[in-house]
Amino acid sequence: MFVPLSVLEFRDRAATFFGDKIGVVDGEAEFTYRAFATRTHRLANALIELGVKPGDRVSFITFNTHHLLEAYYGVIEAGAVLNPINIRLAPHEIAYILDHAGSRVVFFHRDFAPLIEAIGPGLATRPTFVVLDGEPGGIADHEYEALLASGAPDPLHPELDENALAELFYTSGTTGLPKGVAMTHRELYLHSLAAQIGLGFTEDDVVLHVVPLFHVNGWGTPHFLTMIGGRHVMLRRFDPTALMAMVERHQVTRLLAVPTIFNAVLHSRERSRYDLSSLRQLIIGGSPASPDLVRALESELGTQAIVGYGLTETSPIITLAQPRRVLTDHEPAERRQERQAMTGWAIPGVAIRVVDADGTDVRSDADQIGEIVVRGNTVMDGYYRDPEATEATIRDGWLHTGDMATIDEAGYVMIKDRSKDIIISAGENISSVEIEVALGGHPAVLENAVVAAPDDKRGEVPVAIVVLKPEATATAKELRAYCRERLAAHKVPREIHFRDALPKGGTGKVLKAELREPFWAGLDSRVH
Amino acid sequence: MFVPLSVLEFRDRAATFFGDKIGVVDGEAEFTYRAFATRTHRLANALIELGVKPGDRVSFITFNTHHLLEAYYGVIEAGAVLNPINIRLAPHEIAYILDHAGSRVVFFHRDFAPLIEAIGPGLATRPTFVVLDGEPGGIADHEYEALLASGAPDPLHPELDENALAELFYTSGTTGLPKGVAMTHRELYLHSLAAQIGLGFTEDDVVLHVVPLFHVNGWGTPHFLTMIGGRHVMLRRFDPTALMAMVERHQVTRLLAVPTIFNAVLHSRERSRYDLSSLRQLIIGGSPASPDLVRALESELGTQAIVGYGLTETSPIITLAQPRRVLTDHEPAERRQERQAMTGWAIPGVAIRVVDADGTDVRSDADQIGEIVVRGNTVMDGYYRDPEATEATIRDGWLHTGDMATIDEAGYVMIKDRSKDIIISAGENISSVEIEVALGGHPAVLENAVVAAPDDKRGEVPVAIVVLKPEATATAKELRAYCRERLAAHKVPREIHFRDALPKGGTGKVLKAELREPFWAGLDSRVH
Repeated sequence: MFVPLSVLEFRDRAATFFGDKIGVVDGEAEFTYRAFATRTHRLANALIELGVKPGDRVSFITFNTHHLLEAYYGVIEAGAVLNPINIRLAPHEIAYILDHAGSRVVFFHRDFAPLIEAIGPGLATRPTFVVLDGEPGGIADHEYEALLASGAPDPLHPELDENALAELFYTSGTTGLPKGVAMTHRELYLHSLAAQIGLGFTEDDVVLHVVPLFHVNGWGTPHFLTMIGGRHVMLRRFDPTALMAMVERHQVTRLLAVPTIFNAVLHSRERSRYDLSSLRQLIIGGSPASPDLVRALESELGTQAIVGYGLTETSPIITLAQPRRVLTDHEPAERRQERQAMTGWAIPGVAIRVVDADGTDVRSDADQIGEIVVRGNTVMDGYYRDPEATEATIRDGWLHTGDMATIDEAGYVMIKDRSKDIIISAGENISSVEIEVALGGHPAVLENAVVAAPDDKRGEVPVAIVVLKPEATATAKELRAYCRERLAAHKVPREIHFRDALPKGGTGKVLKAELREPFWAGLDSRVH
Repeated sequence: MFVPLSVLEFRDRAATFFGDKIGVVDGEAEFTYRAFATRTHRLANALIELGVKPGDRVSFITFNTHHLLEAYYGVIEAGAVLNPINIRLAPHEIAYILDHAGSRVVFFHRDFAPLIEAIGPGLATRPTFVVLDGEPGGIADHEYEALLASGAPDPLHPELDENALAELFYTSGTTGLPKGVAMTHRELYLHSLAAQIGLGFTEDDVVLHVVPLFHVNGWGTPHFLTMIGGRHVMLRRFDPTALMAMVERHQVTRLLAVPTIFNAVLHSRERSRYDLSSLRQLIIGGSPASPDLVRALESELGTQAIVGYGLTETSPIITLAQPRRVLTDHEPAERRQERQAMTGWAIPGVAIRVVDADGTDVRSDADQIGEIVVRGNTVMDGYYRDPEATEATIRDGWLHTGDMATIDEAGYVMIKDRSKDIIISAGENISSVEIEVALGGHPAVLENAVVAAPDDKRGEVPVAIVVLKPEATATAKELRAYCRERLAAHKVPREIHFRDALPKGGTGKVLKAELREPFWAGLDSRVH
């Protein structure tokens, strides 16, 4: 029997089997799953009343508030497309997204009223504006709670095409305009099932939403945590103390977050004041983690820590780094934490390969570096209204991640670098990150970046740009000797240049392209 | 990205992530998942060499042997349809199935050579015959291992339509000819994900295949246990001692079986000789279980026992009776085991309703009885080449199970009777089983059956046919008084008739239709 796959099933399931349970907590507000479901029905009906038609885009600009969690179901129930917007973007980027998505209704938290008032008048088509946690008036046409009260509490049963657009997330690349990742109902549904199989959440799980819900589908938790009847606790703004207080108060069992947040908790002076013993598992994503971080989290917090990897373009989870008994029973004990710090192995429904420039699989030796390509029903359909970007990313049925990695015999993948930062020397991929980590171990080095410079013989060679610690001294010769003790000869930086600081972008990322440029001056290509 | 859903993914996953692990054990034969995968590739290639075309049916007549587990993937990989046949059926039924399915290749265990030699010549089209565990010659065109050796070890990548037929299971109704349940790739894939979410198996799980793999898709274990990298242990023939020996030897963690098998283990005199402490969970299906059975299994074997419910027509799992913490935290302790003995609550992907004759939902009061109807992607497409039976079963998008049940506020369903055995008295559904259980408690009663008799005032009333224990005596009046103390007045049998034995069918089921007949003699209808 064919029934269109839809995440609405998860909410209905929670309302049926966990109806009296507090499903959502946001500050002092608490909603049972039955009440939550009714609120989503009201939202859906209210959107229809506002004139929203099937396929229309509905945008949200807010923190991790219960409104956005409601939108994950209410907007879909209205047959519309949910478009949560990254609140950290610049006003002109947000305006671009609203225009590009053609948003019909825009919900914004009252804190963003100045932003909306600034960009609203310049939009190509004026959307309906709804303020969250605020008062009607000003640019806002409606206030959220009043709008909900106006919507009927009865469920809608939209005729969904499972391959139609359900969610739209714009990614902010370091270059160019944001691109809209278009996800279908089927992709989101299958991602939820696969992520749940990978993570094994239970109804006892309490998740503190640290990952922004406007970010990569909230790592899928809005869907699969609802499906199994766990509890959502919203975290509006991150700071380590607030996080720890929430963990203690709500007996949070699982945290999904980026390494910097886990580091902030680890190094917080307030940590001993809080009881964090309810935590069962920490899932580290967003950027590579180290075995040291996994070790520190496990020993300091007494809970398992594993890495997960994914992209907005993949719903997002591609891999999880759970240890496998079939391996840990035979490998040395410390290897377990190293594995948990790796990029991981594919969840069900995702096929993953690591390939060289010709598309041939690299050796499964944890050494040869290639690009991660993925295929599966959890991979996006494409970039919204951008066939060119889609064709550049999905080639021959595989999504090219731009992440350079190794793969081992057990199928664990380990990201080594971004493809644009990799150094191709004598036909071999060299990870700039590996060299940076080695060089960063020198006591005089504050920070450093390694980029490719052209070389007539080898094509490219690594060169390092180093910032020394205040008062510290080191010569290029000393640093190269230091590297030689730790790296294969061809990975030792050919040159070392000293600077007072490294150029960085808005999110703190080093702008490697800018550092590369001088070495390539006068050459037509930037690949040698 | 759209990728056809296919169970082949599960085998590929096991071969990649658990390649060196012993995945399949059958007597002294053991296969790593890599070896298992290669054998399935060889089977697929060999089938193509035999001339099997996409969509052709390939039948298996065997016990729970590794060959059939290999067929679950190899036949699909060849683009063909797997048709495992119930070996307990009569020869003419098996011949009917082979003709109705139009089987192109028939694999049979050597023990069934006489059967094949008897029915083979009479088949409409002669299939290719392959003998398992035997020697070529006689009616067999090939021997399995030689056939496998002739097939290339390279994977095939069939272009599958996810909505095309993948498996075909014939059900043996008590009346009429067997009907073929047609399952698509998509149905099997989604059933596997949902069943795994419901059951939460891990790579550490070792399942002894007690449920015949020719029966209702082996309850899904061939697929989801492979997906998560657990271990399959084959049980060729059931007897309690063999089962316990296998549990101890292979450290089996989960058993799925029918109540009679669990009862046989519980009451085996050999039980104390075996260490069964590896068991983590027992899943009881096939027919209703009692809280007493759940209690006995949990206390005697020290492991959790829950009921599961499903039909061949639903891939098969519809519900599982796991306890929910949200309930057990608030309900009396003994209620937990009662819940675990219920029919259960729906797994993801399945919508379930309990409806009256008009299709209206019954009250969620655990009292009003209606028919279980289900909807979802795990429900069969229909009966193979039998649109009439399909239309009679799937109406308005819901599959009508013929099982009469109640539903409670928490969404737990409890089967009370088969619809054809229910007694409709003054507009109310009365469960014949409930009365039989009450009457069966009388010390003089060996067995009994309750059927509907016509009544001018109430439409139908219950009457009981009773077999007394040897030497025991009881009058109809005594037995009715006994029932009156235990049942509501309208459920007390109007008449009690004594017999020396009850008429039974081949599988031991009481033939209630035969018992009903005399009461309706002279009436046109059998519903009053």
